[in-house]
Amino acid sequence: MAKSSKSYQSALHEKDGINPPESFSSSSANSIKSHRRKQPSAEDLVKGIISGNVTALSRAITLVESTNPKHLKKANAIITACLAYANKSIRIGITGVPGVGKSTFIEAFGLHLTHLKKKVAVLAVDPSSTLSQGSILGDKTRMEDLVKDTNAFIRPSPSGDSLGGVARKTRETIILCEAAGYDTILIETVGVGQSETAVHSMVDFFLLLKLAGAGDELQGIKRGIIEMADAIIINKADGDNIKAAKSAKLEFNRALHLYPEKASGWTPKTALCSALKQEGISEIWDMITEYVNHTKANLYFETHRTEQNKFWLLQTIEDRLKSNFYNREIIKTELQSQIDLIEAGKTTPFAAAEYLLSL
Amino acid sequence: MAKSSKSYQSALHEKDGINPPESFSSSSANSIKSHRRKQPSAEDLVKGIISGNVTALSRAITLVESTNPKHLKKANAIITACLAYANKSIRIGITGVPGVGKSTFIEAFGLHLTHLKKKVAVLAVDPSSTLSQGSILGDKTRMEDLVKDTNAFIRPSPSGDSLGGVARKTRETIILCEAAGYDTILIETVGVGQSETAVHSMVDFFLLLKLAGAGDELQGIKRGIIEMADAIIINKADGDNIKAAKSAKLEFNRALHLYPEKASGWTPKTALCSALKQEGISEIWDMITEYVNHTKANLYFETHRTEQNKFWLLQTIEDRLKSNFYNREIIKTELQSQIDLIEAGKTTPFAAAEYLLSL
Repeated sequence: MAKSSKSYQSALHEKDGINPPESFSSSSANSIKSHRRKQPSAEDLVKGIISGNVTALSRAITLVESTNPKHLKKANAIITACLAYANKSIRIGITGVPGVGKSTFIEAFGLHLTHLKKKVAVLAVDPSSTLSQGSILGDKTRMEDLVKDTNAFIRPSPSGDSLGGVARKTRETIILCEAAGYDTILIETVGVGQSETAVHSMVDFFLLLKLAGAGDELQGIKRGIIEMADAIIINKADGDNIKAAKSAKLEFNRALHLYPEKASGWTPKTALCSALKQEGISEIWDMITEYVNHTKANLYFETHRTEQNKFWLLQTIEDRLKSNFYNREIIKTELQSQIDLIEAGKTTPFAAAEYLLSL
Repeated sequence: MAKSSKSYQSALHEKDGINPPESFSSSSANSIKSHRRKQPSAEDLVKGIISGNVTALSRAITLVESTNPKHLKKANAIITACLAYANKSIRIGITGVPGVGKSTFIEAFGLHLTHLKKKVAVLAVDPSSTLSQGSILGDKTRMEDLVKDTNAFIRPSPSGDSLGGVARKTRETIILCEAAGYDTILIETVGVGQSETAVHSMVDFFLLLKLAGAGDELQGIKRGIIEMADAIIINKADGDNIKAAKSAKLEFNRALHLYPEKASGWTPKTALCSALKQEGISEIWDMITEYVNHTKANLYFETHRTEQNKFWLLQTIEDRLKSNFYNREIIKTELQSQIDLIEAGKTTPFAAAEYLLSL
């Protein structure tokens, strides 16, 4: 029905005074018009973002996060236009296992920054959030005061089926937030899986939250997290816990000194804090400021961002080369046949690879 | 001169009773014939390998290691023919930092095995050996007795410009050695870089050699080496060193127990040995025999080899996809231009990747 009524409206038909059919009522027309009003152009969104309009920023991020191919071109146009206004923030990665108090810390740290007249954007990388529905930032009730702060912008982790996809969307969102005037970007990740490595490769400063006596030092060393940290903060250092926290600080300090000097020339530091009691928060910001001054002076800050861009360029290329190859119909079929031949001892992995690559 | 004399021999010229020129003497002809005799066919080499002929095995390995494209086809034919006779050995990886006594250990362990009527092949993966000229196995004088043992076959690390290339050649050499009847393959790697991961992915049992009091436990944990080990052997446990070795054994045992259970169902073990005094060597072989019985009973042994083959298949494909892409002339040029544009803030890594992939 819709199709036949539409055909009357075709530009290829002569309009000779025929009234529009009932199905194309003025209310439908208004609904369409109003829908179109809801879809501002890329130029409008860019203007809005640059003037600091939060609605424009949110809409642009929604386009970046969209899986609709139609939105991709528009999103890319917006990002490219925003690039000239981006790159001027401090990007801070925050990680720690569930229960370490990340939300409380981000709330206390974020409020400290907005009191210093900073504009703070809080993003997250958590590829598991689609499945678990448990994204920490999704639960905004945990950051009641920061949510209400007009100088803070909080956006939960984008959903996605791969860490690569989630990380890409977050990186592009950083650009949009920077163009919107946010000068401090906090990127939270839950301390499991490979997401720390992804976040580490998009931030200037990487902060690891720890608890005293959690006994997961070995985990941190094993998974390379301690090696990535620019600071280890022992949270919940309050009340009866202070003594244990102080001894944990010493231990982590020792662990940090076992690693070779960082390319940044920065010696990773440890500190105590109680996010709940808002103690030790300003010292952490002072430490980060010291880091930024240090690495801007020795030019590492810029070099590091350039290296990160190259990393993402090569990473994206290599991910796409692989998915382009493995998604080919003939490869889907032949890959299994070759694996069967290998298992039967009739070919080697190398000969099988040559064959598949020749298809 | 050689060229003009050769022209008389061209098949395009009529031979009308002209005597061959002096330069094509019967001695030259014999030399060419004998040279041709030196290049046996793929079939001959396969026959030789299967009958346990060491000269045929060495020649086939030389073909596998050759970078001459003409040799590739012949090498592949030999490997494919050998596959049916391969896969019947125990493959043991041996790693440890320089100075831990790998050569002495391999000599003592290898001789123990040949005394048990085993046929032992000793291979190595050391991509740095081309540069450093310092491959441990290259220095055969360190294994004087094993070299003379007719039941042992020692082959130094193939040279190569990439770990992937070196590892591939070693994996193919394993097949040839197995077809030649070697039932125990020892693959040594020097404890630096990524070569341990490569060796781990081609062996059934991975053995880490350590010294007491070397203080590099953290290094082993950081680099994931301890996680890969099926056994940690404290070498040089003799004389005044015994007490320290025993305490190191306890420490490593504790470290091993912090890791989750292995897919093999095997609990990694620690042991003491003195390769120099040939003490503790038979216990290590007993341990490996226990491992093999355990993993053959729970079917992990076969599953693991299948997984390793899949790993090498995918690894080879992905290495080749990357080199095919980055070696294209247009990519070599445009990649740098895109990096420049990224640095100038005129494009994003993701947009640049899309552009390069579209070329």
